[in-house]
Amino acid sequence: MSTGRGGAGRVWAHVGQAFAETDYDVVVLGAGRMGTACALFLRRLAPGLRLLLVERGGLPNEEGATILAPGVWTTLGVPPGRGGEARWGRAFLAGGLGDAPFQPRPLLDLHAHAVPGARSTTGTLTRFPEAAALVLPTALPFARVDEEAATYRPGPVALACGQGAVRAGADLLLNTHAHLIPGGVRLDRLTVTNTHEVVTHETREVRAGGVVVALGADGPPAVEHDLGAHTAHGRAYRQTPRLNVPSDDRTPTLRAGGLTLRPVGGGFTLIPPVHHRDPQGYSPAGGRLTGVPVGVRRETLEDLIALMDALPPLATGALEVGRSLADVPGAWLALPGGRADAPPLHEEVAPGVHLLLGGPLADTLGLAVAYDLAAQVAGVEGRPWEGG
Amino acid sequence: MSTGRGGAGRVWAHVGQAFAETDYDVVVLGAGRMGTACALFLRRLAPGLRLLLVERGGLPNEEGATILAPGVWTTLGVPPGRGGEARWGRAFLAGGLGDAPFQPRPLLDLHAHAVPGARSTTGTLTRFPEAAALVLPTALPFARVDEEAATYRPGPVALACGQGAVRAGADLLLNTHAHLIPGGVRLDRLTVTNTHEVVTHETREVRAGGVVVALGADGPPAVEHDLGAHTAHGRAYRQTPRLNVPSDDRTPTLRAGGLTLRPVGGGFTLIPPVHHRDPQGYSPAGGRLTGVPVGVRRETLEDLIALMDALPPLATGALEVGRSLADVPGAWLALPGGRADAPPLHEEVAPGVHLLLGGPLADTLGLAVAYDLAAQVAGVEGRPWEGG
Repeated sequence: MSTGRGGAGRVWAHVGQAFAETDYDVVVLGAGRMGTACALFLRRLAPGLRLLLVERGGLPNEEGATILAPGVWTTLGVPPGRGGEARWGRAFLAGGLGDAPFQPRPLLDLHAHAVPGARSTTGTLTRFPEAAALVLPTALPFARVDEEAATYRPGPVALACGQGAVRAGADLLLNTHAHLIPGGVRLDRLTVTNTHEVVTHETREVRAGGVVVALGADGPPAVEHDLGAHTAHGRAYRQTPRLNVPSDDRTPTLRAGGLTLRPVGGGFTLIPPVHHRDPQGYSPAGGRLTGVPVGVRRETLEDLIALMDALPPLATGALEVGRSLADVPGAWLALPGGRADAPPLHEEVAPGVHLLLGGPLADTLGLAVAYDLAAQVAGVEGRPWEGG
Repeated sequence: MSTGRGGAGRVWAHVGQAFAETDYDVVVLGAGRMGTACALFLRRLAPGLRLLLVERGGLPNEEGATILAPGVWTTLGVPPGRGGEARWGRAFLAGGLGDAPFQPRPLLDLHAHAVPGARSTTGTLTRFPEAAALVLPTALPFARVDEEAATYRPGPVALACGQGAVRAGADLLLNTHAHLIPGGVRLDRLTVTNTHEVVTHETREVRAGGVVVALGADGPPAVEHDLGAHTAHGRAYRQTPRLNVPSDDRTPTLRAGGLTLRPVGGGFTLIPPVHHRDPQGYSPAGGRLTGVPVGVRRETLEDLIALMDALPPLATGALEVGRSLADVPGAWLALPGGRADAPPLHEEVAPGVHLLLGGPLADTLGLAVAYDLAAQVAGVEGRPWEGG
């Protein structure tokens, strides 16, 4: 059953609710942070647009990169010329999302060698006594501070954007696996059997004037498989181990050697650098630490070992490396253009079919790129971050 | 049975030949190009040294990177300051190896943008009419020529070095899997059963004053597993597809966009760039080309597709992409320091245990690095490539 009320869209959460729609102006695939934001902006920019948001799981999606994304907004590492988009996204996060928490929190960027704008780490740490126990200042003597930085939780943001899109009139179809077909999408509505198998309950075809593919790391394979298109995008598996060292609301986010230490829940989440895409056919695998199997992959262990002198808590039992892969949270990230340092992007991969990718810089630039695609599809000129 | 005669060493090729040795001054593990060269130089520099060369298979080893190595000697891409070592290796290859063929053959390095020392591709190709049909000069208008470049076959070189080491007095133990143990090695002599299983026939322990681990991409895992040491070295799987376009002795080697086209056997072998290490746990997998499964991995396909305009034969049926992995020759390369552009190196990973790694630049610098380790172990000062 649909749940339309006032100007709000309808929601189909399970196969007991009959879905008989056959036409939309735009279908958005994927209710992660990129898809939900694009759906919300589309309804705001083109209120007459008939819009369907399709998600394989629930809202927000539970298996993608959104839930595990660090949620660190910072302009450090953002390409030149993208600061306006970043700050527009920051203002949206800080003001526009109801209950989704947003926490201004400076970011300390620590270096072994001098970098432009850096000051003494020892002096900088007097402002941040909560971080002093984490860092050996003689190993990382140079510090920059991003005073504008902030932390937030991408999962609640995706939930708020998805709910906002429905309130603004978008329809939402959950537990549905979508495929691209000429002129629209084929929708497999999924259900769970008594024996816990996920099976297709029914299949529908829906015509769509446009399709936005916001399936994260699964987006490029989907357009390649369904459309036969070739893309140069890649993906990488990023694990985010926990570090059980106390943190609170005043603790800054730290970054050293590409590793980010993000205060959360009284401890830290470690966000390792993404060096490059993982090859096709790679399945995540744990590594070994002094001969013992652990859940953190070898490449990440090497990065952590290289930082153990400079960040002494990494060399203690406070670092949760787990016994197997299942012990360490991890997710596949899309890498736009196959690059680990590339900003989010959208790309028209076939007439009317737009691939929307977040990736490693989505925390800072994802909302603006989702807005840009929504504005393009809605035929709106000008962007809110453009001067004057 | 040993086959000692004159000053030559003994060879044990199968388990029917009794092996009862218990002590060597140095044991070299691995009869690829690095291990055989190190063994030869050790016997030449320290004729009194009791030396055993151990190989899991035959001579030369058949499963490692040596047999499939391109054998392109060039100083392009070699780090500054290593030219002397490279040229010493070239002279050794050109003069010192009996029947191993060595072919001076210029290398054309083609670029889309101006690089130092480059001239017009169109003008350069008038000197190399055999290469003109391969290249679209407007797409790659800048060319450098390495006039000193040469091609050779690393497999026969390893065979010649291994035979030379035995003639110079080294013992050689084939079909034997070696493990590092304190003070020496444990040797599992392998045999094949009637049902084609490889099994251990007998196990011997041998004391060794020093051990050289020259196991290619398997070297770092061996020292990590056997010694509990941690190394930062990596590995990458490189496939070398064939391009069936005619070549002869006058055809230069070509390089464009990191891809090398190496004339061999009337056609070309393609040597794709190594971009970065493959993650632990990765097994080689084929890719898809316009939806069809092929044997070339996706990452390599992307590199080839990017060059199809500039090198038109790549876009034809002359490119053998195969139907599955088994159709495309490929091997694991060691990546010293985990880097794709790092030269060969040796490293003492435990007292008396030396890891010797070739990797992507072994064609040009491998012999000198093997010599350097041999001289260090032999206690010899000075290197033949040093001035004066």
